[in-house]
Amino acid sequence: MNLLENINSPADLKKLSVENLSQLAQEIREFLIDSVSKTGGHIGPSLGVVELTIALHYIYDSPNDKIVWDVGHQAYAHKLLTGRKDRFSTLRQYGGISGFPHITESEHDAVTTGHASTSISTALGLAKSRDLQKKKNDVIAVIGDGSLTGGLAFEGLNNLGHSKTKMCVILNDNEMAIANNVGALSKYLTKIITDKKYNALKTGAWNRLGSFSGGFGKKIQNTMHHLSKSVKQVFIPGGLFEDLGLRYIGPIDGHNFAELLSVLKYARDQNNVPLLIHVLTQKGKGYAHAEADKEKFHGLGAFDKNTGEIYSSGKNSYSEIFGKEMTRLAQNDAKIVAITAAMPDGTGLSGFAEKFPERFFDVGIAEGHAVSFAAGLALNGIKPVVAMYSTFLQRAFDQIIHDVALDNLHVVFAIDRAGIVGADGPTHHGAFDLSFLRTVPNAIILTPANAADLRFMLKYALDDLNCPVFIRYPRGIAPQNDEEKVKFEEITEIKSGKNVCVLAVGHFLQSAKETVELLETKGIFPCLISVKQIKPLTKELYSAIFKKFEYIVLCEENTIIGGFCSAVIEMSQELMEEKKLAKMPKFIRVAYPDCFINHGHVGELAKDINMSPKQVADKIISAIKG
Amino acid sequence: MNLLENINSPADLKKLSVENLSQLAQEIREFLIDSVSKTGGHIGPSLGVVELTIALHYIYDSPNDKIVWDVGHQAYAHKLLTGRKDRFSTLRQYGGISGFPHITESEHDAVTTGHASTSISTALGLAKSRDLQKKKNDVIAVIGDGSLTGGLAFEGLNNLGHSKTKMCVILNDNEMAIANNVGALSKYLTKIITDKKYNALKTGAWNRLGSFSGGFGKKIQNTMHHLSKSVKQVFIPGGLFEDLGLRYIGPIDGHNFAELLSVLKYARDQNNVPLLIHVLTQKGKGYAHAEADKEKFHGLGAFDKNTGEIYSSGKNSYSEIFGKEMTRLAQNDAKIVAITAAMPDGTGLSGFAEKFPERFFDVGIAEGHAVSFAAGLALNGIKPVVAMYSTFLQRAFDQIIHDVALDNLHVVFAIDRAGIVGADGPTHHGAFDLSFLRTVPNAIILTPANAADLRFMLKYALDDLNCPVFIRYPRGIAPQNDEEKVKFEEITEIKSGKNVCVLAVGHFLQSAKETVELLETKGIFPCLISVKQIKPLTKELYSAIFKKFEYIVLCEENTIIGGFCSAVIEMSQELMEEKKLAKMPKFIRVAYPDCFINHGHVGELAKDINMSPKQVADKIISAIKG
Repeated sequence: MNLLENINSPADLKKLSVENLSQLAQEIREFLIDSVSKTGGHIGPSLGVVELTIALHYIYDSPNDKIVWDVGHQAYAHKLLTGRKDRFSTLRQYGGISGFPHITESEHDAVTTGHASTSISTALGLAKSRDLQKKKNDVIAVIGDGSLTGGLAFEGLNNLGHSKTKMCVILNDNEMAIANNVGALSKYLTKIITDKKYNALKTGAWNRLGSFSGGFGKKIQNTMHHLSKSVKQVFIPGGLFEDLGLRYIGPIDGHNFAELLSVLKYARDQNNVPLLIHVLTQKGKGYAHAEADKEKFHGLGAFDKNTGEIYSSGKNSYSEIFGKEMTRLAQNDAKIVAITAAMPDGTGLSGFAEKFPERFFDVGIAEGHAVSFAAGLALNGIKPVVAMYSTFLQRAFDQIIHDVALDNLHVVFAIDRAGIVGADGPTHHGAFDLSFLRTVPNAIILTPANAADLRFMLKYALDDLNCPVFIRYPRGIAPQNDEEKVKFEEITEIKSGKNVCVLAVGHFLQSAKETVELLETKGIFPCLISVKQIKPLTKELYSAIFKKFEYIVLCEENTIIGGFCSAVIEMSQELMEEKKLAKMPKFIRVAYPDCFINHGHVGELAKDINMSPKQVADKIISAIKG
Repeated sequence: MNLLENINSPADLKKLSVENLSQLAQEIREFLIDSVSKTGGHIGPSLGVVELTIALHYIYDSPNDKIVWDVGHQAYAHKLLTGRKDRFSTLRQYGGISGFPHITESEHDAVTTGHASTSISTALGLAKSRDLQKKKNDVIAVIGDGSLTGGLAFEGLNNLGHSKTKMCVILNDNEMAIANNVGALSKYLTKIITDKKYNALKTGAWNRLGSFSGGFGKKIQNTMHHLSKSVKQVFIPGGLFEDLGLRYIGPIDGHNFAELLSVLKYARDQNNVPLLIHVLTQKGKGYAHAEADKEKFHGLGAFDKNTGEIYSSGKNSYSEIFGKEMTRLAQNDAKIVAITAAMPDGTGLSGFAEKFPERFFDVGIAEGHAVSFAAGLALNGIKPVVAMYSTFLQRAFDQIIHDVALDNLHVVFAIDRAGIVGADGPTHHGAFDLSFLRTVPNAIILTPANAADLRFMLKYALDDLNCPVFIRYPRGIAPQNDEEKVKFEEITEIKSGKNVCVLAVGHFLQSAKETVELLETKGIFPCLISVKQIKPLTKELYSAIFKKFEYIVLCEENTIIGGFCSAVIEMSQELMEEKKLAKMPKFIRVAYPDCFINHGHVGELAKDINMSPKQVADKIISAIKG
C-alpha cells in the first residue's frame, strides 16, 4: 500500500499511526529522488529533513501553526505533505511550483523565502503579532547550522531570547552550509555532538524513555526535564543558546521518529518560553550519491537517478573561468586572496581553495563580514577578491559603501549569477546590482561578454586599478571563441552599421547578436556595440555615438530603474546641460520591468518580459517604423 | 603642571610614569568637556573610555599596532593623544577634524568608521593581512556592548574564533547602546557582572595581584591565568565567548589603571590566539550631567558646561512630529506598532515607547532584523512602522527586497536623517536612499516638505496604502505653517509661473523657495512645485509639466545617480518611446555629486556642492541665458 498517495494535507498525515511514519518517509524519499532527478533542485537539503518534516506536521497544526523554513530549499517534503504532490513534477519549471516556500502558493507556506538566516526574525514577527492579537497558534522556525552563521540569525536569536514569547527554533544541524561549514559556531556544535561524557549520559536517558509506543506522558516530560538538568551539570550542551535566553533541548537524532515526536510534543506544550531544539540530520539521507557528495547534491540540475551523474556540466561557465583565472593570477601575485560566503564551488573557487588554502577565506553565510573583512585586508596591502552571487551582495550594500568605497579601497568583487538565474526564481535573480552599485561613489563596474573579457578584466582590476571594482557576469556558459585582449576597452564595436546602434551590456551581447541578425533580414543594419563598463561612462565615447545614430538601443539584464539605461540617459542629459549635444537621441530601452520575475528557464522568462531576440527586434522595428 | 599639554603622540605618553596616568585622565576629561560643550559631539561615549584609551596607547605601539574603534564616536581621547589636540576645537566643524576616525586624518586611525559593528571584521582583515605578510604588529578592536548586538559583529566573532590569529577584542561594556541596551546578550553580560560568587572570587584574585607598581611580571601573568581557571570552575564567565573560540578575560574595571595595564600587557604577550577582554566602563564618566542622562549626552550639539543644558532643542523637528503622530494614530488603531534599531530618542519614538510599551520594539543595533521582524508582523495582520536613519537603512537593503517587497507586504518605513546630516559627515549622510529604494518593486516613496505633510503621509500610508511605503525626511526642524491636507497630492503647485518649472523634492522646497525669490529679483518667474512622491510617478502629471514649460529644474537631496532626477528623465524617455512627447524637455538637475560629502554645517556643505539657493539660481540663469 502506498501511503503518500493518500496524503493531500497535514490532516491526512495525522490519520496515520506512528508505526507507519517510517514507511511514509521511505516513500517520500523515493518520490523526491525520482522527481528531482528529472527537474533538478535542492535534493540534498530536502532528503535530510524528511522525518523532521513529517514529525512537524504530525505534531503541529499547519496552517494555524506557522512553520517557517529558513532559505526554504529543504521544504520539498513539506510541499508533498501540503497538497502539492501532483504538481511536484513542475518544480522550478516555468509556470510550475516554486523551489522555495511562497505564500501565494500554499496557505501552509507561512513566509516566502530563498535567502538564508531570515527565519528567526520573521518567525518572531509572526509570534509577536500572535501575542498582540491574543491568538494561540505555535510558530516554529527551522534553520540549518549553515544559516545560523549569518548575522541576521544572531540578531533574531538575540531578540528572541530577550522575549518571553512562545516560539520554537529548530536547529537542523547537518554540519554543512552549502559547502562544509565554517566558523567557531560550527566547531562548537560539533563539540556538543561529539562530547563523550554527554553522549553516554544521553544514551542512558533516552533508554530510560522506554519505547515510544508508551504514549506521550508526564513520564516523558519529566525525563526530558531531568535529562536537561543532569546533562547541564556535566557539560551544559547548548550553553551558548541558554546564555542567549533560549531553553536548549538536544541534540536529538533527526531521523528517529521516537525522539522527534516526543521532543516536539514537549516543545509544543511549553508556554511563554523560546526553545531551541538541536536536531542532527544527514544531508542527502537515504540517497547514496547525495550522502557521498553533499556539496554536489545540495542543489543541481537534472541527473541520472542511478548513477548520480548530472546531465549538464558547469564546464566553461563564467564561474569556472573566473576560478581558473584566479588560480593562475594568484600564482604570480602573493597578494591576491579570495573570499567567498559559503560558495566555494558555486563561485568556481574550489580549485583556488585547494591550491592556496591559506589565501582562501570561506567566511560562511556572512556577506557583510566578507566585505568588511576584505576592507581590512585591502587597508594593509592585500588584494582581496570577493566572489559572491548578485542577489546575496544586496546584503553587503552598506559595507560596500561604508567600509570599502568611502576610503576608495582596492577590493575586487566578482559578482556571479547576475541577471535572471532561471529555476531558483525571484529570490535569486540578480536584477538590481547595476542600479545599486552605480550609486556607490568611487566604484568601477565592469561587465564581461565572454570568457576572454572576464579573464582580462580580472587581471586589469587587480593590476591596473586601485579602487572598488565590480565585475558582473551571469550564471551559465561563457562564449569561448573570443581573442584575448591586450588593452581595456570600455566599448567594443562588434559590427558596424547605420542609423540604429545597439548597445548590449556584458553577456547580453549574445542575445543582441540574434536581434541584429533578425533585423538584417528586415533590411535594417544596426551597429552592434559590446558594453564592458557601466561606471564610469566616458562622455566622448557616448557623445560620438549619440551624434552618429538616430536610434540608440540600450540593452541590459538589470531592472530598468537606475541601471545602464538610466546611466546613458543621464549622460545624454549631462551633455545637453553642457550644450555639447543639440538634441536628445531617441533611446529604446531593453531591460527588466520594475517587478519581481518568476522562475523557469531563462529563455522562457526572457519572453515573459519581452526580452527575447525576436521581441527586441520587433520593438526596434516598431520604434523606427511607428 | 599640565601633562596633556606636552603630549603630541603616543611616544610622549609613554614617557609618563604609571602614577601620572590618573592625572592625565582627569586633564583629558576636563579638556573634552570644555571643548565639546562648545562644538557639540559624542561626549558620553568618549568620557567612558579615557582610561582605556590611555592604557591602550601606553601598552601598544600605534600606528604600528592597529587600534580599530567600532563606530568611532568614542575616539576623542585617542584623537587628543595622537597629535590632534590643537585642532580639537574644530571637531565636526566644516574644514575641521572629523567626529570619527578617518584614515586620511591620522596614521593612528587604522580604519575609517561611523557605522556600528564593523570593527571585528575589519580588524580581522588587518590581522590576517599581517599574517600573510609575516608582519608582527598587534591588532585591537574596541567594540561597545551596543555594537555587539549587530549581526555583523557576530559574523566577525564567528570567523575570528575559528582562526588561530592573534587579535584582541576589547568589549567596552557600558550597558548602553545609544539608548539602554536590549536583547539577550545584554542580559547575559549583566549576569556576568552581577554574579556574586564570581565577584567575591574576583576581588580576592585581584587583591592577590598586589600593587601594580610591583611591575609587570611572571607573577601577574600566572595569577591572571590562575584567576581565569579558578573562576571558570565556578561560573564560566564569558562562556559564550569561549564557546565561540575566543579566550575570555574579565570583567575588569575600565577606570582602574592597574587592572587595565596588567591585562592589556598580558594580552599583548599572548600569541596565536584571539582574546576578548571584557572591560566595564561608565558612559559619561566624570561629568555629572552625562552620568545622569546617558542617552542625552551620547551625542549632542553645543551645551552649557555648567548646567548641562543643550542650546538648541529638537523641538518641532521632523523626528518629533513623527513620534507624536505615531502616538496619536496608535491610540485609535491597536494594530500599529513601532520598531527602532537602538534609536528610540533619535527617531522621536520615546513618547510612543512610554505610552505603548508592548507595541514598541527596540531591537538593538540590528537593522536587518528590524525589517525581517516587521515582515513577520505584517504577514499576520499587524501594521509595523520601522523608524530608522537613512544611512543605517542601507544595512537592510536585502531584507527590504527579499522579506518585504517580494510579497508586497504592508510595512511603513519612517526614514529619518535623509540627505546631508551635517556634523557627523560622510558616514552618516543619507545620500543614497531615493536611488536604492527606487529600484525596489512595489515600493511607494513619499517625501514630506513640512510637518503637515509628514503627519498626513503617515496616516495615509497606514490607512490607505497596502504595500511597502517609505516616508523620507531630513534631520532638523519641519516647517509648521502649512495647512493639514485632506487628500494625497503627488505634487502641489506652490507658486505658479512661466517658462521655468522648479520641482523640489520634500524638504528641499524651503531652499527652492529662496532660489525662486532670487530669480524673481532677476525678472524670472518660475513655477514652483512641491514633490511629495518619488515612486511611482504619474505620467499624466509629468507629461503636462513637460509640455507647459521649457526648462524643468529637478531638485533633490540625494545622489544625482538613480534618484528623482533620473526618475523624471526616465519618465520623459518613456513618454518619448510612447510617442506621447515630441521632444525631451530641457532639464536642469540639482542633486548631490557622485562622491562622498564632508562634514560641517548643512549650509556650508550645500555651498560645497553647489546647492545653496543662490548657486541654484545662478545655475538656472546660466542655463536659460547661456
